[in-house]
Amino acid sequence: MTRTIVASKSKTVTIGFDEPFCVIGERINPTGRKKLAAELEAGDFSTVEKDALEQVACGAMVLDVNAGVVYNSNPNPNETEPPLMRRMIELVQGLVEVPLCIDSSVPAALEAGLEAAEGRPLLNSVTGEEERLEAILPLVKKYDVPVVAISNDDTGISEDPEVRFAVAKKIVERAADYGIPAHDIVVDPLVMPVGAMATAGRQVFTLVRRLREELGVNTTCGASNISFGLPHRHGINAAFLPMAITAGMTSAIMNPVRQVEMEAIKAANFLMNNDPNGAEWIRFSRVLDAVAEGTAFPEAAKAAQAAGGGRGGRRGGRRRSA
Amino acid sequence: MTRTIVASKSKTVTIGFDEPFCVIGERINPTGRKKLAAELEAGDFSTVEKDALEQVACGAMVLDVNAGVVYNSNPNPNETEPPLMRRMIELVQGLVEVPLCIDSSVPAALEAGLEAAEGRPLLNSVTGEEERLEAILPLVKKYDVPVVAISNDDTGISEDPEVRFAVAKKIVERAADYGIPAHDIVVDPLVMPVGAMATAGRQVFTLVRRLREELGVNTTCGASNISFGLPHRHGINAAFLPMAITAGMTSAIMNPVRQVEMEAIKAANFLMNNDPNGAEWIRFSRVLDAVAEGTAFPEAAKAAQAAGGGRGGRRGGRRRSA
Repeated sequence: MTRTIVASKSKTVTIGFDEPFCVIGERINPTGRKKLAAELEAGDFSTVEKDALEQVACGAMVLDVNAGVVYNSNPNPNETEPPLMRRMIELVQGLVEVPLCIDSSVPAALEAGLEAAEGRPLLNSVTGEEERLEAILPLVKKYDVPVVAISNDDTGISEDPEVRFAVAKKIVERAADYGIPAHDIVVDPLVMPVGAMATAGRQVFTLVRRLREELGVNTTCGASNISFGLPHRHGINAAFLPMAITAGMTSAIMNPVRQVEMEAIKAANFLMNNDPNGAEWIRFSRVLDAVAEGTAFPEAAKAAQAAGGGRGGRRGGRRRSA
Repeated sequence: MTRTIVASKSKTVTIGFDEPFCVIGERINPTGRKKLAAELEAGDFSTVEKDALEQVACGAMVLDVNAGVVYNSNPNPNETEPPLMRRMIELVQGLVEVPLCIDSSVPAALEAGLEAAEGRPLLNSVTGEEERLEAILPLVKKYDVPVVAISNDDTGISEDPEVRFAVAKKIVERAADYGIPAHDIVVDPLVMPVGAMATAGRQVFTLVRRLREELGVNTTCGASNISFGLPHRHGINAAFLPMAITAGMTSAIMNPVRQVEMEAIKAANFLMNNDPNGAEWIRFSRVLDAVAEGTAFPEAAKAAQAAGGGRGGRRGGRRRSA
């Protein structure tokens, strides 16, 4: 059985076929968030703190941390990103207990994050590109961490799922050359927008099943890509996630501060027999009750978390308002 | 490729692996609806008319018709149900264009419905019980109609999915003895409540895949059973349906006058590449827009149907207020 172990100093999360779906919170990322980027350059981490606490309250089990800011004062991310990553990792792991996912295209930023992170963070990411394989796999080996493997290579992103499978296989095999086991590779088979490619959904379901059965790896995805450009995106996302889970997907990098998607995942966990006695569904249904009475989802989730003693998401004793 | 053809006088619906999920509207059924039962005994069919029009507007592709009233004036359903079934079938097929599903535990009522129905209705149901097999399969053969086959037998409903598969196989084999092909059998593998049986969801997903791969049959279920007794049932149902569709389920007997379940099915059709260009999702998203603006779902669906020329659901020309 494939089990990918991700851990903070105090909390372990297992990504696996018989585990609750692992929700990796995507919010701590300045890409496309100008206000957050400006804040980070100015040394203001208040949004990062709010996003960390809110995502955990809403059900994130791992938090992605991306420090990809292009500073106005210094456009070289190789200089600016590593120290910012270190600072953000330290900040977030001081605030919440969940494990972290260190997310960068800059290898030096990944290594800065690895040095700063306690426990066993998830590294995000390696691809099938030769330069990337050679830069990242030694870090994965050196720090003994699991890694997200994205199914594109030097030829780009193929629309052919056979090619994407082959790229994933190549990464798993190359990792094995470094002594990295398949259970430490979490493959992202790449989700295309179904509005642009009619087969996008079926492709993913087929790929996930093959990745699981033939390579024995866990899988992840940028879940919201599936609905890009469509009206009522959350309705598409909320069907896609249970369908991907049925096909064998074991995690997603996504926004957990959205009720419909989280409701779909909680229900899917229950239906996959990964929610003993439906205890988590019952707990979540109280959050839904509060939402039905007019409370915003993140506020309702935070209130439920506080009432439940925090469920381990927040650092013991520390109680800060978000 | 397994294709189950169901038809009214003017409209054909194909149940199949590469077809949109077939929603069979369950509302026209007096079981557990005391007011409707009393109306039917009194000869008042206004609720039947309303349920027929509303379900079709909301997206039902087939309408189940059940005349299972126990009259206060005559407690023998063998006498009362056949003429009532005939009357209800005639009424509903005069009102809407979609094919019908004739639903009864009384063989004489099934035959009355078969005599009255135009086109090629779906018969609901046969089971693995010997007496039932002998009473129903000759009707299926005589009228050349598809039939719902429920996976219980003389020993009752087994909690063991292997037994339920074996019962389905027996029904398919027995039907073959009558010259009834597998593509005219729509197996209901029986959905247990996940609140009572933790494996209920996984059982269904596994069974549906086996029924499809090993017996080559289409499948159906009473979808809402899965969430029986749980809070926020519709959230469970709305995850279950896309999951079952991913596993290969091709129809469900359900209440289409529920936005969340229908939204999940429309999204799943799109994600399974059974909604060319997302045209149906785009159309449905306008209904969701109207709901977001405060219109009730059935009213929004009826308005969209009227604006779209009825989409074939209502008998041409006839415009009655529901």
